[in-house]
Amino acid sequence: MISVHNEPQPTELGDVRMANRAVVLRHVRVHAPCSRADIAAHTGLNKATVSSLVTELIEGRLVRETGLTEHRIGRPATMLVLDGEPYAALGMEIGGDELTVVAIDLAGTRLLTWRRAFAAPAAAPGDTVRALAALARRALNRVTGQGRTVLGLTVGVPGLVDAAGRVELSTALRWRGVDLAGELRAALGDPEYVVGVDNEANLAALAEHRHGAYAGTGHLVHLTGGTGVGAGIICAGRLLRGGRGLAGELGHLPLAAEGPRCACGRLGCVEAWVGLPAVIARVLPDTVADGPVTDFLPELDRVETLARQGDPAVLAQLAGIGRHLGHAVSMVANLVDPEVVVVGGHFATLGAWLLPTARQELADRAVGGCRLAASVLGAQATALGGATAALAAIESGRLPAR
Amino acid sequence: MISVHNEPQPTELGDVRMANRAVVLRHVRVHAPCSRADIAAHTGLNKATVSSLVTELIEGRLVRETGLTEHRIGRPATMLVLDGEPYAALGMEIGGDELTVVAIDLAGTRLLTWRRAFAAPAAAPGDTVRALAALARRALNRVTGQGRTVLGLTVGVPGLVDAAGRVELSTALRWRGVDLAGELRAALGDPEYVVGVDNEANLAALAEHRHGAYAGTGHLVHLTGGTGVGAGIICAGRLLRGGRGLAGELGHLPLAAEGPRCACGRLGCVEAWVGLPAVIARVLPDTVADGPVTDFLPELDRVETLARQGDPAVLAQLAGIGRHLGHAVSMVANLVDPEVVVVGGHFATLGAWLLPTARQELADRAVGGCRLAASVLGAQATALGGATAALAAIESGRLPAR
Repeated sequence: MISVHNEPQPTELGDVRMANRAVVLRHVRVHAPCSRADIAAHTGLNKATVSSLVTELIEGRLVRETGLTEHRIGRPATMLVLDGEPYAALGMEIGGDELTVVAIDLAGTRLLTWRRAFAAPAAAPGDTVRALAALARRALNRVTGQGRTVLGLTVGVPGLVDAAGRVELSTALRWRGVDLAGELRAALGDPEYVVGVDNEANLAALAEHRHGAYAGTGHLVHLTGGTGVGAGIICAGRLLRGGRGLAGELGHLPLAAEGPRCACGRLGCVEAWVGLPAVIARVLPDTVADGPVTDFLPELDRVETLARQGDPAVLAQLAGIGRHLGHAVSMVANLVDPEVVVVGGHFATLGAWLLPTARQELADRAVGGCRLAASVLGAQATALGGATAALAAIESGRLPAR
Repeated sequence: MISVHNEPQPTELGDVRMANRAVVLRHVRVHAPCSRADIAAHTGLNKATVSSLVTELIEGRLVRETGLTEHRIGRPATMLVLDGEPYAALGMEIGGDELTVVAIDLAGTRLLTWRRAFAAPAAAPGDTVRALAALARRALNRVTGQGRTVLGLTVGVPGLVDAAGRVELSTALRWRGVDLAGELRAALGDPEYVVGVDNEANLAALAEHRHGAYAGTGHLVHLTGGTGVGAGIICAGRLLRGGRGLAGELGHLPLAAEGPRCACGRLGCVEAWVGLPAVIARVLPDTVADGPVTDFLPELDRVETLARQGDPAVLAQLAGIGRHLGHAVSMVANLVDPEVVVVGGHFATLGAWLLPTARQELADRAVGGCRLAASVLGAQATALGGATAALAAIESGRLPAR
């Protein structure tokens, strides 16, 4: 979703309370267990304000007191942690050959991760919405059966999504102008929680920023690996979306005037050098000679196995692909100056063999000391990011409706 | 200067008043003349709040009432405008062969623009600071002689600047670790107003965002043309600085694996294709054969004259350079998705002959409909941006100290 605030916005007294509630909630999330006095000392809010906000957060069941107390001079302090019990947030992903749902609690603990085989590119959008709603309902039943209230649901799609959750264009899904948020909301019976839709790379970047090995890094890029290659860009802790929500279109930047033919028709695009089909074609040329391959996971396994076995031809190919990957990363590094670029998908799977040359190439081409690392979040980064995004309202200091 | 706010910040009641003062001041700046009722209607603030904030702004001499009234139903409304009289903000630039100072009032009206020949790259940093301070003092004397209070002074430099205004590295000036803000502040006798330093491309982007033909565009990139090529990137109304303040380093991205040798030692960098020395070398090869040229302005005039005369060889060369420029712009367009890229320096001077092919190339390579235009701000964009940056505290709703 695109959200743009170019102008200073009017503020009310209630906004102050909400903003400070967000500050307290964030402190508990990051530093728990912690006392009210810790929060006051670290945030600069006075103790009375902290106490009053903590009381609201406890009443809203967002925070709870633990039995733990910290023994310092004076009274023992009661320690606070996020309350993991009452709530859940859901994230989903429409992938090329499966649907995924992830549920987390307020503390980010994974409650469930379910995947269902479904070839969305071959299905009508309405059938995909129905399949998505069916999977969502199963997950919703599970978490509400645990007594949890659902705070939100966000779906990641490969494509351009507008602020209202409408998919303007998805080449991968063959969609144009599908009101996914509206249709999914209707299929779920117009629930009270927010149903959102966002681009998969943006959600994966949010997941890295919250749950990855570089969580909390203010300037971070997540590079999706797969058939498409796209960047989710976080600058100063916020998603960079661009004027039309198109930011991060790295896949069709050319690495050279010549080079392999890309699906887009041009020569030498990033995707044509380092996208999963290109990697398979280069490392396992016989596979591609068999005919078109849509699901490359078995081939990716085969490449990984050969690399683990130390096959010298495979290692040499991967080292070369790594150099192209480093070149691609250097373009993002020079233009948006992230502290770290985290790569997902097949870049992570094959990271042990791609990243050494990629890092050399990056160091050679980029100013500054941008790091390059493989994601540790696995295949569900986008769905996890969707669940994270669904917590946004609560994390901005709103109290849940009870 | 680098300013990063990754975390929600504690808020106080005073912040609400300041934030709303900023909203009112901005409304007057953009929509003047306007009435208190207009402000309330457009901002959503209630009339009593608007009245009280306007009273403060009038007392602080930021806003004044005009004789104009608007005749609607009911009482005639007194109209408000920014008060252009009492204040001034200064911006300066250290260029390759001159120093520039610009002063503006609160409404952005240009009070003075002075340039002084000075070859900073050949001078010791201390001499440059002294020359800068001397020029600043002349401008300060002029505006304080008009009865104005100076609100701030910001200097633009070609290079990497930290949050405290220290120039970490400037290849163009041959500086490393020069505390420009501190030394200039001392040279000016520790003034009460803020003395800041920022990267020239960032300040030029601020000037475009406030004063250029695309002022107010939320997602805007300014591409500096000259010996170096760099991008100042504004996303959602904010400068994108990156993790180390290095964002916008477009000049050394390669357009092709082959190509002309860049000053950095690599082949095919953007600067080596479209930087001013490259343009002169390509269009006027005889000039370069004469020996090294540091000030290319006479040659740039000559190229412009030949192009105006319709010299077919020159037009063909410029068309080719335009295609490389469009390719370079497409990289920024695909990664950060600006609504418009505004080009300055020689790209603007030669815009009539570079931009047609650049636009074709951009349309061919970039998703979305990013526009490409020549800056109308002329050579003082960076200094004007410095003056604009110096108004930041007032525009965020602070009242001036009297």
